Amino acid sequence: MKKKKVLIVGLGLMGASLGLSLGKKYEVWGLSRDKKKLRTAKNTKIIFKGINAFSDIPHDVELICVCVPVSKIVETVSRIDKAVSRRVLVTDVGSTKKSIVDKIKKAKLKKVNFVGSHPMAGGHRSGLSSAQARLYEKSLVFVTRDHGTLKDIKKVSLFWKKAGAARVSVVSSKDHDKIVGDISHLPHVMASLLIESIPSKNIQFGGAGFKDVTRVAQGDAGLWVDIVSSNPFLLSSLKEYRKTLDHFIKLSKGKKWSSVKKLLSSAEKKRKKLNS
Amino acid sequence: MKKKKVLIVGLGLMGASLGLSLGKKYEVWGLSRDKKKLRTAKNTKIIFKGINAFSDIPHDVELICVCVPVSKIVETVSRIDKAVSRRVLVTDVGSTKKSIVDKIKKAKLKKVNFVGSHPMAGGHRSGLSSAQARLYEKSLVFVTRDHGTLKDIKKVSLFWKKAGAARVSVVSSKDHDKIVGDISHLPHVMASLLIESIPSKNIQFGGAGFKDVTRVAQGDAGLWVDIVSSNPFLLSSLKEYRKTLDHFIKLSKGKKWSSVKKLLSSAEKKRKKLNS
Repeated sequence: MKKKKVLIVGLGLMGASLGLSLGKKYEVWGLSRDKKKLRTAKNTKIIFKGINAFSDIPHDVELICVCVPVSKIVETVSRIDKAVSRRVLVTDVGSTKKSIVDKIKKAKLKKVNFVGSHPMAGGHRSGLSSAQARLYEKSLVFVTRDHGTLKDIKKVSLFWKKAGAARVSVVSSKDHDKIVGDISHLPHVMASLLIESIPSKNIQFGGAGFKDVTRVAQGDAGLWVDIVSSNPFLLSSLKEYRKTLDHFIKLSKGKKWSSVKKLLSSAEKKRKKLNS
Repeated sequence: MKKKKVLIVGLGLMGASLGLSLGKKYEVWGLSRDKKKLRTAKNTKIIFKGINAFSDIPHDVELICVCVPVSKIVETVSRIDKAVSRRVLVTDVGSTKKSIVDKIKKAKLKKVNFVGSHPMAGGHRSGLSSAQARLYEKSLVFVTRDHGTLKDIKKVSLFWKKAGAARVSVVSSKDHDKIVGDISHLPHVMASLLIESIPSKNIQFGGAGFKDVTRVAQGDAGLWVDIVSSNPFLLSSLKEYRKTLDHFIKLSKGKKWSSVKKLLSSAEKKRKKLNS
């Protein structure tokens, strides 16, 4: 049976890794402005075929996955909409969903059926040269249910399963942004603030624990400011965090060590439920 | 040449791992109230010989390392002082140093020469059963210079090198507590507060990044409340962190994304200087 075509737009870490993980299941096409990148991607089997222009999108493509930075996603989806001649299913890998899904709804696209995705995979490295075939393996992928038919949502979910996802969670874009604000964007900000709040000369002494806590802060600042600025729920997560911090400072000032122990113990138990 | 005797008091993670790492270089004795633990430690080559009472400390011991929780260190060192008949060099592995060193100075011990230590090793596991021969390998160890002769400080430093330390940093107990407050205690509190500030139902979605940021929060709450409550400089680190957080919240509210990017980028660069 002939493999179905999928197109990956953008060949950074996310797109290139996706190509590597899908090569046996789909005929993977890649779209990039950068011809050198397309050549490298082809030579390293990230893609089966590279194209350089939206007008070259094949008419029989099963699904297009937009793997560009958050701030470029809506624009990219609109360009696809203008370029294609038939209905096409499009998804993305953006770390925030509500603002993207809302803008795409407003744009009243003619040919694109959009279902948002956010694979919880990546890490702090970036670029095609960091691509890993197993990046999506065992990952959790969020798929938005704001609009898009059940059939399209199922197709996108299957696509992620084929890329190696262990679990696909179908949620509203609002719930997505709240959850991911808490478990990804807030932790990133916390780690960066930790580094910024301590004297630089002390950082060199950081051991395994410090490295763990701050590892995510190595993520590309340009990508992260896009993420942070496009999550409308992050501010309330930050405020909630400040409340907890204020409470802790108050307990410490008052030497309420049994309450401090209770708090640390509660966190210890909750964290131990997650493996490693 | 006959191996010199060292005594490890307390056979939890730190003490037992120390025994495993020193067995080829010293004749390692262990002191514990728990006879079953002493048997296990002997059978697993953590120690060469176990003793159950302070009165059994051998008179020709080269160095005693106290590996009990922070809140028990001063009391343990005092008991050693009462039990021994000759001058003896004693160190510890406590995560805070100023309050310990100050209390020991006040206690005017007769036979103990105390030099404080803090190996930056451990992690969130605890107990003899988690012991690892390579726990101290490549670690950084702080040794205090508040009192103690240069000769004693050198002996203690050499002891840690033999345990596998890559680097021994001799500092005042005050500087130690400030540095470690920033790179170990503050990160621990931050991680615990992160878990406590978000809805519990969201924790299950935590991926690799969330796990990294919060890994240290699995540390034993009982041990950690001892540490947190005995570091007199942690409160000012917490307040400094709150200032940075307030600043970030203000920038986010005002949508000052270029300033947010600068902050994230500064953290990114500083963190990248530390490996992994």
